[in-house]
Order: sequence, then C-alpha cells, then structure tokens
Amino acid sequence: MSHPLRLGIAGLGTIGAALVHIIQSTDNRLSVSSLRTVEITGVTARTRNKERDFSLDGITWFEDASSLAVSEDIDVFVELIGGDEGPARESVEKALQAGKHVVTANKALLAKHGVALAKLAEEKQVSLNYEAAVAGGIPIIKTMREAMSGNKVNRVYGIMNGTCNYILTRMEDEKITFEDCLKDAQRLGYAEADPTFDIGGHDTAHKLSLLTSLAFGCEVSFSSIYLEGIEEITLSDIEAANTLGYRIKLLGVAQETESGIEQRVHPAMVSKESAIGQVSSVTNAVAVEADQVGSLLLSGPGAGGKATASAVVGDIADIARGLKVPVFGRPCASLKPYERARMRLHEGGYYIALDLLDKPGAFAGVATRMAERDISLKSVVQNQRGKEVDGIKNQAQHVVIITHETTEKAISEALESLINDGNVVGKPKMIRIEKLD
Amino acid sequence: MSHPLRLGIAGLGTIGAALVHIIQSTDNRLSVSSLRTVEITGVTARTRNKERDFSLDGITWFEDASSLAVSEDIDVFVELIGGDEGPARESVEKALQAGKHVVTANKALLAKHGVALAKLAEEKQVSLNYEAAVAGGIPIIKTMREAMSGNKVNRVYGIMNGTCNYILTRMEDEKITFEDCLKDAQRLGYAEADPTFDIGGHDTAHKLSLLTSLAFGCEVSFSSIYLEGIEEITLSDIEAANTLGYRIKLLGVAQETESGIEQRVHPAMVSKESAIGQVSSVTNAVAVEADQVGSLLLSGPGAGGKATASAVVGDIADIARGLKVPVFGRPCASLKPYERARMRLHEGGYYIALDLLDKPGAFAGVATRMAERDISLKSVVQNQRGKEVDGIKNQAQHVVIITHETTEKAISEALESLINDGNVVGKPKMIRIEKLD
Repeated sequence: MSHPLRLGIAGLGTIGAALVHIIQSTDNRLSVSSLRTVEITGVTARTRNKERDFSLDGITWFEDASSLAVSEDIDVFVELIGGDEGPARESVEKALQAGKHVVTANKALLAKHGVALAKLAEEKQVSLNYEAAVAGGIPIIKTMREAMSGNKVNRVYGIMNGTCNYILTRMEDEKITFEDCLKDAQRLGYAEADPTFDIGGHDTAHKLSLLTSLAFGCEVSFSSIYLEGIEEITLSDIEAANTLGYRIKLLGVAQETESGIEQRVHPAMVSKESAIGQVSSVTNAVAVEADQVGSLLLSGPGAGGKATASAVVGDIADIARGLKVPVFGRPCASLKPYERARMRLHEGGYYIALDLLDKPGAFAGVATRMAERDISLKSVVQNQRGKEVDGIKNQAQHVVIITHETTEKAISEALESLINDGNVVGKPKMIRIEKLD
Repeated sequence: MSHPLRLGIAGLGTIGAALVHIIQSTDNRLSVSSLRTVEITGVTARTRNKERDFSLDGITWFEDASSLAVSEDIDVFVELIGGDEGPARESVEKALQAGKHVVTANKALLAKHGVALAKLAEEKQVSLNYEAAVAGGIPIIKTMREAMSGNKVNRVYGIMNGTCNYILTRMEDEKITFEDCLKDAQRLGYAEADPTFDIGGHDTAHKLSLLTSLAFGCEVSFSSIYLEGIEEITLSDIEAANTLGYRIKLLGVAQETESGIEQRVHPAMVSKESAIGQVSSVTNAVAVEADQVGSLLLSGPGAGGKATASAVVGDIADIARGLKVPVFGRPCASLKPYERARMRLHEGGYYIALDLLDKPGAFAGVATRMAERDISLKSVVQNQRGKEVDGIKNQAQHVVIITHETTEKAISEALESLINDGNVVGKPKMIRIEKLD
C-alpha cells in the first residue's frame, strides 16, 4: 500500500485542469487524507501544444486515451473526455480490461453502458467511480451508495441541470422570456451553443438513470425515462405558478410505484416553501426519501471545473484508501431488471392552462369533462374576457386549473375530450405538480 | 473477508432498537450493499428482562459493556450508551485496545476524548466511526472526511439541535413565548426534562467540535467554544428579525480567521432567503464552504431512532467493506493543535436592541457611541414613545439597530459606554448576524 497511487488523466479541459491543480497544490491534501501519495504519471488531451497554467513536467504525454488507459505506469484511469461512445467508451473499457481503476465524470457513457462497464469492473475487481457524473460537486453517489446502505429508498428527485434552473429562476425573478434567458445563459457560458441537450432534459435524464439504479437496485435504463424539457414554459405559466404558491423546476424523479419504477424528467410545480422550491439559479439539489433516514437533501454546485474536480478527487481518494464498493451499490448479479412504471398510471396533481372560446357553455364543458374522469379541482382561475394572453389579443378566456391528485390517464383523456369539443384555442398546457412533504 | 462481520451492540434504546430492526430485516440490505454478511452476536443494555419488539434469540447477552467490548465473538463494538465518561468511555477504550472496530453515536465522548481515542484506534489499526454523532441521519462526517478530500475548508456551520430549531420556528410561526414553546417541546418529547444541554447550546458545541477538527485538520477542542444559548431570545427579537428580513437560528460555526480558528455557538440572524434560514422545526442542516467545491448544504433529520440508526448502519457498512479512513480525516500525528481565534476579533454585522430613556440627547448619545468605534449603522428602527415593550409599560423608547460589519470588541465597548451613560433601561440585547452568500 505504500507505493504511490499513479493517475493517468485523459482530458485536460476545465475539470482536468482543476484536477491537476488540486493534485499539484503544495499542501497535497489528497495524499494526507488518503494516507497515500497520489501522483499524475500520464496525461492525454486533444491538443498537446497548448498554453496551460500548470506544468506537465515529469508527466508522460500519451497520443491517445486508449494507450494511456493500458499504460503500465498508471493505477487509475481518469476519464474526462465525455461522450457515450468513441474514445471515452473505448478507453474506459480498455482500462478496466487491463485491471485499472476508473474514475469518470461521464454521465452519458454510464447512462448507456453503465451495467456492462460495472460487470467488467466487478470481474476485474477494480473500482468504477463516478461521483462527478451526477450533480457536480454534491456527494450524492457516495451518500446513496455508501451512507444509505441500511435504507430502502422510496423516491429520489432533484434539480440536476444548472442551465435549466438558471433560466427558470431568471424568468421568475426578472419576467424575461425563455428565449431571452436562454440567450443570456449562452452568453454567460451557462448554456451550450446547441442547448437542446440541457433544456430538453437529456442531461438530467442521464444523471437520473444512475440515481435510479442506486436507489432501487436495478439496472440502468436511460431509454425508459419519460422526458419533457422546459422549452414550452412561458412567462404566463411562471406567473400562474407564482400566484398559486408554486415554482416551476425541471425535476428528475424516480420513484417506486405499484406498476414498477417511474423515471421521469419534466418541468414540475413545486411548493415555494419546499426546500427544492428554494434552490435557485445554477445550484443543483438532490433529495432522497427512504424508510430509515427519512428525507435527506443535498445541494451545491452542479457544474464548474473546481466543484466537479472536487468530486473526482473524492473518488480518487476512495481508491487510494482501498475502498471497495459495488458500482451500483450491489453486485451486478443482484441488480434487478428495470421494470418500467406506466406513465399513464402516474398519480399527482396537475396544472392545466388553456384558452377557451368566449361562448356560452364553454366553461361548463371544461368542468364536465374533468368531472367525467373523476378529476376534482382544487382551484380555477379565469382571466377577464378579452384579456391579452401571451402577447396575443384574442377573444378567448385564459383558464388555469389546479387539480387534486388524479392520474396521467385521466388528465390526458380529459384534455383530449376538451380539444374534440372544439372550444379550446391552441394547445392546452399541462404541468405536473410534484407532491412534497 | 468472507466470514461474517460480527457486531456487539451496547445500548438498546431508541437507536439500538432501530439498528437491530434494520439488521434483522428480511432483505438484509446491509449485507447486500457491503458484500459481506453482517450479524449481531452480542448485546448489552441497562435492563435485560424488558419487553422488546425484536428477538434476541441466538445473541449472547452481556452483563456490562466492557465485557462485550472485549468479547472474542465480536469484530465491531457499537456504543449507544452515551455520556462522556463511565461505561461509554471505558468500553470504547477497551474495545479499541482489544483491536475491535468501534461505531458510536456519542458526541460528548468524542468532543472530550476524541483525539486520545483516535490515537488508540490508529495504533490498533481499527476504525472509529461516528456519523451518527453529528446531525443524526445526515452524512456530514462522510462528506467532510471522504468526499471533500481535495478541499480546504473555509467555514462550516449549521443547525445541529432540533430542540432549539423547533422552539425558534414555533416562536416565529405562532408568536408563542420561549417558555411556552419549551413546555410543548418537552411534552412532545423533543426536549429533555432538563433542557439546559440543548437550549444552552452544549449539544451543538459537542457536534461542532468534531466538525472543526475535520474541517481544519486540528485537534478537537470542545472547551474553547464560545457558547451562548437561546434562553434569552424573546418574541420581540424574533419579530424585529422578521421585519428586517432575518430569522434567528442557533448556529454552530467554525471558521478560519487571521487570529486562529473561531468556534462559536450562539443565536444568529440569518437571511430568510438563505438555505439555512429556511430550515425549520426539528430538521438539521450543515453547510460547508471550501475552496474547490464551493458551498455544500446537507439537510435532514438530526435525531430520531431510525434516522440515527441509518447513520450507524452506514458506519458499519464501511467497516464491512474494509474502508480505512483516519478518524479526523488525517493521521493523528498530523493534526495541528487547535489555535483559538479571539472572539473579540470576530467580525460581522450585529443586531442591537435596547430601551432608551425618553429624554433629550439619549438617542444622539447612541449614535455618538457607535460612531466613536467606527461602527456604521445599516438601519435604525425606533418605536413610538411610551410603547409597551415586552409587556412592560414604560417611558422608554425601544430602539433596534443593525450595524454594518464591525468587530465584537467595538460592539461590546460601545454597549459598555452606552450603559455607563445611564440612558439605557435594562440590559441591551446583542445578536450576531451571520453573513451568508
């Protein structure tokens, strides 16, 4: 145990650079706390001759990730390349195959190939650590995989995409449209040039798929996630939510139901008073509800080089300390197949906003269609006649309905009937209300 | 590694009973997640013949904790007795001496003898785990001791006593006096018959002393903690805080300053908008600010049998997995001596409430005394003349002052001068404002 732990780092972007800084810092906290010297022996990155604010003296440069992954001179392969195929997947597989421990921040890779990689790690008796892959610097993997060992999880949910939360927070605070917020987020570097991956909820879904496996002891099943992004959230939804005591957040939620495990990513109304409702801007937060510990909430920075590198360092320290923990919290052989809950059986309250033709009986029709499906209404707000709705002057009335607990099936059938009745202008908006304690 | 991990449990109160339930549950999650069978081989408790809702069949009963601690038939000694001396200390020492791993929920014991016990554990190469000792079910020890390995902590603070937070929350929400809230807390089992330990801040200080050591790599120094309880918080303080955008919380805070490490437990004004300001009732929360990860916040149940047992199980699982981590995050030899910051050098904003004789120049005197010490005022609220203050009709004016950042020395000197001036009725009230990002 006394020989140094040797790292090979693939990828020297923001996270890689922050990682090198931590390990090269003079006080070397990592070595102190893990009781073992940790050093970087090899690196690789896209460009070799680039100005960097740290020295690579004494560190071997590798031309590609895969040759670093199998180098005799490393014990741990740190994958910070990204992407669910290509060099990232290839190098991680090679590293595990060669009996190297792997630390990765790559949610896409694990969401797609997590179980296969976990099997390989298990077979080779090495670690596959991925704290940085979910909610950046927040130690949610360690919490669920280790600290909550005695618990049966009922639900895990969270705000796991800073871009979306930044946009939704600004829309609420400053009454700026989705499009303008997105532009600002891009200018400030909080959103990519192609923002689809974030605002469409895919990024959240990648992270959620890993938490689901840890929570319920099942295989990772990214493709089964019900997915809805925040693209269609308007200022009028945000304002209606506000009036009703809610905020709109992009949540990832996994919960056990009678028909299987629900995995869903969608904008949700959460109480302003709830802990998750108070998580603003780029901050992330994950809550876990379990039979023993009750409800835990962890919040902090979900992105950024230093915060993410902090999580990578924690993973490396665990390897230095000799910690052996199954990749998804239990041996691969005992991971249950993922059993998908039917989204139509989802139960909860709903926010419905629709524009109704201003003619006799139109409103009564709405009430009737809801009643037919046993949907009881908690509140109904009807704007004044002829009011300008979302910038368009029309002759419709804007109606906002909050329902009591019902099913997705009932709601979608009721909305379908309403549309068929011909009194609804445009498309009704439906946002799920997440029930929180 | 394949022989079962054998536990000896000393203490079968609420936590002990919850622990037995988790380990005896049919799905045995602990064994699954730690890849090793975990079983209870010995127990001891105050009363042997007591009705219990679990079976002790096949488990050896020991007459006292110390003989259980050294039993050949256990690998891990779980101390749930409590108290900083007597059987708890004796049995933990004997267990470590005999080369047994120890898991304890005993904050008082570790606050007083933590370093000596850590040295013993280190010498015997066994674990001494204490997740349950701080903030119940919240994995703050694991987070600081393992996940934050690459970080330099700047400040750690939190709400770590449910009784105090319950009282302060009810005072605010229901305008009930401190005394009445305390009575209710006692009736509901949230407060002990002798509540001094909780409301005087001692319990919070025990917990803080352990976090300080983890945060700053120094020896535990409980006796150096600046301590002030919530006994003197009145409804009028709570209302003034509310008006000014604050809430009053009993905080434990440790932070690095130029003159050393500040450790303080006192009622503090925190912004209503802050995450810590929104932690209500018996919930606990701990925040850590560090150079790499930024600011993390963990919240959840700080007490209760099941939640605390969940933390104990996490500690046992770590031992089952073979995790070796230094008791206070680094080898005892490298723990720095605790260097106490001078409280008079503490910097922050202050809330001052005082009753001032209604005579010419009295108010100007306050302003002058503050200005003499370079204390600049952020806001001053003066109640109408002759107003009833805290139920007493008097001729005084109630003045509430919020200062900008200044020092403890300046404030206490200014207050002293004011008292000497003879215009202040009764004792001025001073509450520190905790600066949060």
